[in-house]
Amino acid sequence: MPPTTVRITAVDTYDIRFPTSRELDGSDAMNPDPDYSAAYVILRTSAGGPEGHGFTFTIGRGNDVQVAAIDALREHVVGRSVAELCADPGSLYRDLIGDSQLRWLGPEKGVMHMAIGAVVNAVWDLAAKRERKPVWQFLADADPAWLASQVDFRYISDALTQDEAVELLRKGRQGAPDRAADLLRRGYPAYTTSPGWLGYSDEKLTHLAEQAVTDGFTQIKLKVGADLEDDIRRCRAAREAVGPDVRIAIDANQRWDVTQAIEWTKALAEFDPYWIEEPTSPDDILGHAAIRRGVHPVKVATGEHVQNRIVFKQFLQAGAIDVLQLDSARVAGVNENIAILLLAAKFGIPVCPHAGGVGLCELVQHLSMFDYVALSGTKQDRVIEFVDHLHQHFLDPVDVTGGHYQAPTAPGFSAAMHQTTIDTFTYPHGTFWAAEAASDKPGNATKDHV
Amino acid sequence: MPPTTVRITAVDTYDIRFPTSRELDGSDAMNPDPDYSAAYVILRTSAGGPEGHGFTFTIGRGNDVQVAAIDALREHVVGRSVAELCADPGSLYRDLIGDSQLRWLGPEKGVMHMAIGAVVNAVWDLAAKRERKPVWQFLADADPAWLASQVDFRYISDALTQDEAVELLRKGRQGAPDRAADLLRRGYPAYTTSPGWLGYSDEKLTHLAEQAVTDGFTQIKLKVGADLEDDIRRCRAAREAVGPDVRIAIDANQRWDVTQAIEWTKALAEFDPYWIEEPTSPDDILGHAAIRRGVHPVKVATGEHVQNRIVFKQFLQAGAIDVLQLDSARVAGVNENIAILLLAAKFGIPVCPHAGGVGLCELVQHLSMFDYVALSGTKQDRVIEFVDHLHQHFLDPVDVTGGHYQAPTAPGFSAAMHQTTIDTFTYPHGTFWAAEAASDKPGNATKDHV
Repeated sequence: MPPTTVRITAVDTYDIRFPTSRELDGSDAMNPDPDYSAAYVILRTSAGGPEGHGFTFTIGRGNDVQVAAIDALREHVVGRSVAELCADPGSLYRDLIGDSQLRWLGPEKGVMHMAIGAVVNAVWDLAAKRERKPVWQFLADADPAWLASQVDFRYISDALTQDEAVELLRKGRQGAPDRAADLLRRGYPAYTTSPGWLGYSDEKLTHLAEQAVTDGFTQIKLKVGADLEDDIRRCRAAREAVGPDVRIAIDANQRWDVTQAIEWTKALAEFDPYWIEEPTSPDDILGHAAIRRGVHPVKVATGEHVQNRIVFKQFLQAGAIDVLQLDSARVAGVNENIAILLLAAKFGIPVCPHAGGVGLCELVQHLSMFDYVALSGTKQDRVIEFVDHLHQHFLDPVDVTGGHYQAPTAPGFSAAMHQTTIDTFTYPHGTFWAAEAASDKPGNATKDHV
Repeated sequence: MPPTTVRITAVDTYDIRFPTSRELDGSDAMNPDPDYSAAYVILRTSAGGPEGHGFTFTIGRGNDVQVAAIDALREHVVGRSVAELCADPGSLYRDLIGDSQLRWLGPEKGVMHMAIGAVVNAVWDLAAKRERKPVWQFLADADPAWLASQVDFRYISDALTQDEAVELLRKGRQGAPDRAADLLRRGYPAYTTSPGWLGYSDEKLTHLAEQAVTDGFTQIKLKVGADLEDDIRRCRAAREAVGPDVRIAIDANQRWDVTQAIEWTKALAEFDPYWIEEPTSPDDILGHAAIRRGVHPVKVATGEHVQNRIVFKQFLQAGAIDVLQLDSARVAGVNENIAILLLAAKFGIPVCPHAGGVGLCELVQHLSMFDYVALSGTKQDRVIEFVDHLHQHFLDPVDVTGGHYQAPTAPGFSAAMHQTTIDTFTYPHGTFWAAEAASDKPGNATKDHV
């Protein structure tokens, strides 16, 4: 190879934590005090050109474990040719999920899998930047056969073959230019979770729900599951605030067992909830199927904690969900999410991605926009979650206007954070956390900050 | 509290790796070059009395990530009263799986969950030592209501309630003294995987299979799944070596998709395999159900990579397996394994645990022996895997004689390693690895050692 080959020279990792727990932003029935965090990775290259940015999202403690997991992938990445990597991100994705020693720690789930997602997403960021396209457009413009080749069909071939995937993507390309133009003009529908955090007062909930309608949202979401009487009161307040025509999703964050999920959801049925989200464990495919039968016509949604394409496959095969909520940073990155979008398209189930946290809105908008332009071809009953937190830390933050995500036009995956953010919130030595530690507060800095 | 309360003073962790890949011991279709490893934990106390030993098993790279995950649990453990902890290990188990920030990294799966298993198992080791009983006896002697209280029924109550668990345990106690006496006299049946590693020659396979029969084993296991012609030849050689009456299990280590699993297993049916183990992804409940329908009368077995009780519950609900292969160190320790044993008892499915690796035989024998003495009450069609590797590193190694595990009588969980082992094989600074690094071998020390 010529000496001028541009290579990956470093995989730099950062444990970035924001002190969100002080405001109870993000509080729900299972997660009372999250400190929204990112295990953040930058792929440096020998060219001095664009870098690749990626991350996975956590809620505080354990973000260091997540960083250690990304560090364990470094030897697979450093030294690779950037051109080859960007021409075939799937080659790295397969190497990472196929490392037999690391695979033992999953396989394809939890900490190691999320680490792979962070690195793989950083590669797509780099690849799209080199093509000077946002990731959604990079994907929508890609050759269908090449896109299908980015998917690992192992363990899903009983539900979707590579030939079927190519066919779905070919069909998806019909009319793509018109949809891309529509997307750039009108954006992609969002719904907002901001009114409904469990730690908020009824007054704050009502005010934010009314504001959401004013802002153009046609769907909001409330956290439920801690106390039924509270939930009844809060759902009533929300329904009165938004009127009959705005959809109200409810979200139990895995709080219930199967029987309780059915009973609790039925007790809230009078407020016409659109979907019940995460009614029980994200591992319980058969449980969701039973709940879906039990709560009809309320829809059942899950996905933000679903570990991989294999479990999503079964949710679809079992008829266990009405709405598939993929997450940009829970599975092994864009490659696996293409598989999940293809499975959803084959089974005809709408994808309404999970977002919020740190940067999940920034990432996932690209996947839904690709799906609209070049795969499912529709926005019908599809919405991307929106939570208005922490966007100021990103170089290319989401723009949600009139209840719609406006299509990003900057090259890449919208994943890069400001250097000042990294310097301030890297744990424990960034300026914010160092100042916390230097104060005389007792206890754990990630729990007991001011 | 009086100043004399004995407390946990430290959670010491060790990254211990053995260079097993040089011999191809443990090689299979998915794991060609494992370096058997343990993320090892010692709970120190202020009494200077017994310590608690636990670990989880990995196959090399990533063992450092596993250690980092155990380290992340430390703050939940240090300072606890030893008496309170040992009187109710479930209190710590619930705190660990319920830490909302750490839970985000699963929930209840992969790296974080295995870390919890290591710590929880160390607590049971400590608790049993304080009662001067081996863990199997400690469990068998325990009050049924207390044992049931050690289980977290969240997400499994649709299949098993706490009341049902108490009832199963009460029934299990009938005749327990006779079975304990039988166990101490005759041991618990084992099967051996030693003949069947994929890297072995046909001659070695034949020799070891014959030796297994001579040694009193009535079941052996062969690894399959890399090449069908090889598998046919190896299965034929094994069947000829052991005769028609010894059971031959085959193990694909997740190599196949659903359709291929059925076809491949049928192609080996003439050699009368007893079970096909891990035919596909351990996450694919519906896939296993399809395979089970397709390969009958060959039985379907899985479990060593099944992440938690919730997935086991579904394997049982879906009628997807004939044999449940729990692992002592994959799930969150004894507490979750009691749940899994209870589920298996309720559904009438035999448990044949996964073992091998580092110390998995030492740990899991206690669970099967407890099950025999005080839960299922039977050894019918139940065998514990045995692999004759690395036992010399343990203070209280397994004793498999005449094809049977002899019941351990030393107090605790048989989990403690020799100090010399820790000093030698701790990575990368133990004497073995330091010497490897000091040699002039190129490449990764965990891959390219002599």
